[in-house]
Amino acid sequence: MRQSIQTRLTLIIALITSLIFPAFAIAADPLPSWNDGGNKSAILKFVTAVTSQTSPDFVEPAERIATFDNDGTLWVEAPMYTQLMFAFDRVKAMAPNHPEWKDDPVLEAVLKDDMKAVAASGKKGILEIAMKTHAGMTTDEFAGIVSDWIAKAEHPTLKRKYTELTYQPMKELILYLQANGFKTYIVSGGGVEFMRPWAEAAYNIPPEQIIGSSIVTEFKMKDGKPVLVRQPKIFFIDDKEGKAIGIQKFIGRRPIASFGNADADIPMLQWTLAGEGRRLGMLVHHTDAQREFAYDRKSIVGKLDQGIDNAKSGGWSLIDMKADWARVFSK
Amino acid sequence: MRQSIQTRLTLIIALITSLIFPAFAIAADPLPSWNDGGNKSAILKFVTAVTSQTSPDFVEPAERIATFDNDGTLWVEAPMYTQLMFAFDRVKAMAPNHPEWKDDPVLEAVLKDDMKAVAASGKKGILEIAMKTHAGMTTDEFAGIVSDWIAKAEHPTLKRKYTELTYQPMKELILYLQANGFKTYIVSGGGVEFMRPWAEAAYNIPPEQIIGSSIVTEFKMKDGKPVLVRQPKIFFIDDKEGKAIGIQKFIGRRPIASFGNADADIPMLQWTLAGEGRRLGMLVHHTDAQREFAYDRKSIVGKLDQGIDNAKSGGWSLIDMKADWARVFSK
Repeated sequence: MRQSIQTRLTLIIALITSLIFPAFAIAADPLPSWNDGGNKSAILKFVTAVTSQTSPDFVEPAERIATFDNDGTLWVEAPMYTQLMFAFDRVKAMAPNHPEWKDDPVLEAVLKDDMKAVAASGKKGILEIAMKTHAGMTTDEFAGIVSDWIAKAEHPTLKRKYTELTYQPMKELILYLQANGFKTYIVSGGGVEFMRPWAEAAYNIPPEQIIGSSIVTEFKMKDGKPVLVRQPKIFFIDDKEGKAIGIQKFIGRRPIASFGNADADIPMLQWTLAGEGRRLGMLVHHTDAQREFAYDRKSIVGKLDQGIDNAKSGGWSLIDMKADWARVFSK
Repeated sequence: MRQSIQTRLTLIIALITSLIFPAFAIAADPLPSWNDGGNKSAILKFVTAVTSQTSPDFVEPAERIATFDNDGTLWVEAPMYTQLMFAFDRVKAMAPNHPEWKDDPVLEAVLKDDMKAVAASGKKGILEIAMKTHAGMTTDEFAGIVSDWIAKAEHPTLKRKYTELTYQPMKELILYLQANGFKTYIVSGGGVEFMRPWAEAAYNIPPEQIIGSSIVTEFKMKDGKPVLVRQPKIFFIDDKEGKAIGIQKFIGRRPIASFGNADADIPMLQWTLAGEGRRLGMLVHHTDAQREFAYDRKSIVGKLDQGIDNAKSGGWSLIDMKADWARVFSK
């Protein structure tokens, strides 16, 4: 009887505590937007194993590095990468000051919304669109342009802001890892200066923990003040093998957990999983045509083919969006 | 009388506390190896101003970024950059497996300790020496080579390990800034993978907060495991204007305090000081021929010329090693 009262008291205190301190409520189930089809408990077990002092798999906090791809892993990437939508919008916004663009078949295709012609222009065309819209201004100016755009732009079919089309289960995972002493990084093929202006508010990942592709910048004095001017020249492509290379260049520690969604993330997973001790690697499989999109082996964006076939031999798991996620978007 | 006893009691408690908890003693004077010729109090005032919630100069912890050059700012760089001494030692260690090096005038000069001929070979010669000794192995292998070397190598005239020739006043400054919520970064012209293996133990700065020059790496599979193989090709030179560029690329936030010792650090200082709000920039002036070395305008290493002439107009201060530092080396 005495025990029963104690138990009841404990429960009441826990309830009151969870109401006053929402963090305690999260501690009860740190991943409420995940169903448990195996992946959820695999994550929980992994984190417990590497953070328990008495565990044979214990990892010092300094070495608890987790890396996340962005497009298709943390936010929507279909039907077209968000940064490309940004570039198309920029072509249209900048066109009035560039009458000469009408003579350029690729830019003219963008202006006419002729996506077939844009696609047909291939990598060369996309690179041209990227350089025309991403270079020629200072880093501060570009950050302002991105911030203005992301505050208003809407997804073409889901009709919501892109920052609302971030994945709630992955955001919970980031916070859960952070609460357990992990340093969480984005390692994306997307432009680092395209992500930094909004990623901290969206994911709680600060600018200095965002790794991405980038173009060359030049240091110049302008009105007596130094500026960094963005040049139409690739500096680093943080994609495929570049993700492992970027992790070593920018972090200098091997992650113990990595999360992606495409074949382009495999080298990051391989680099992570090849380290000694307990590791975790997962790929989000877009299986949910109803709530988001369903695509994999033949997709233009986030192609996932080898990532499915080699999951077992490679040692990573597939997150089944439809089955594993009770909720998809953060808003 | 009662007050006097209280005062005495307080002093005794402070004394006991400082003996039991050395951190409290540091809190009393966080920079004990600094004499106060103005720079010490400037540092203390700056940190108080940006960390006091009620101060008009208050800066959020997330924005408290401080950057430090390494060679000549955090450790000895005279008579020759430590990494170059490493490269010379590596040429000698590797030579038995490279009989063909005897036909190479630059490498042969290193093998014969003919420093005049090495110097005469200029940047091209130095680059060749660097590439022969820094490329061709995996990143893990290179880290091991650096660790082995730094554990044993001694400075040619000071006859002590290089990690003992780190500057105690600057180490105190790093710890003091960290204790006040700063994220401290190294931003060096030296190789990032040459610094990472030992810098955390030496300065309490983790690998992911070290920015430096680097060479291209290639992702390869070796015995079924991924490796990153160092290539004899420059990826990024984190020197002069490259320091401001590197800060933006790797951190993505503008520092509020920067410390260097050479003209090559001026762009980093300019970039730091051009930001809004209160800022701090300082250059270590090597004025102490007795305890360390005295050099500035005409030095081959750490040339400091514009840094002296433009200190006032640029808004940075000169740290006079001889006058400002009560102690130079950490051991």
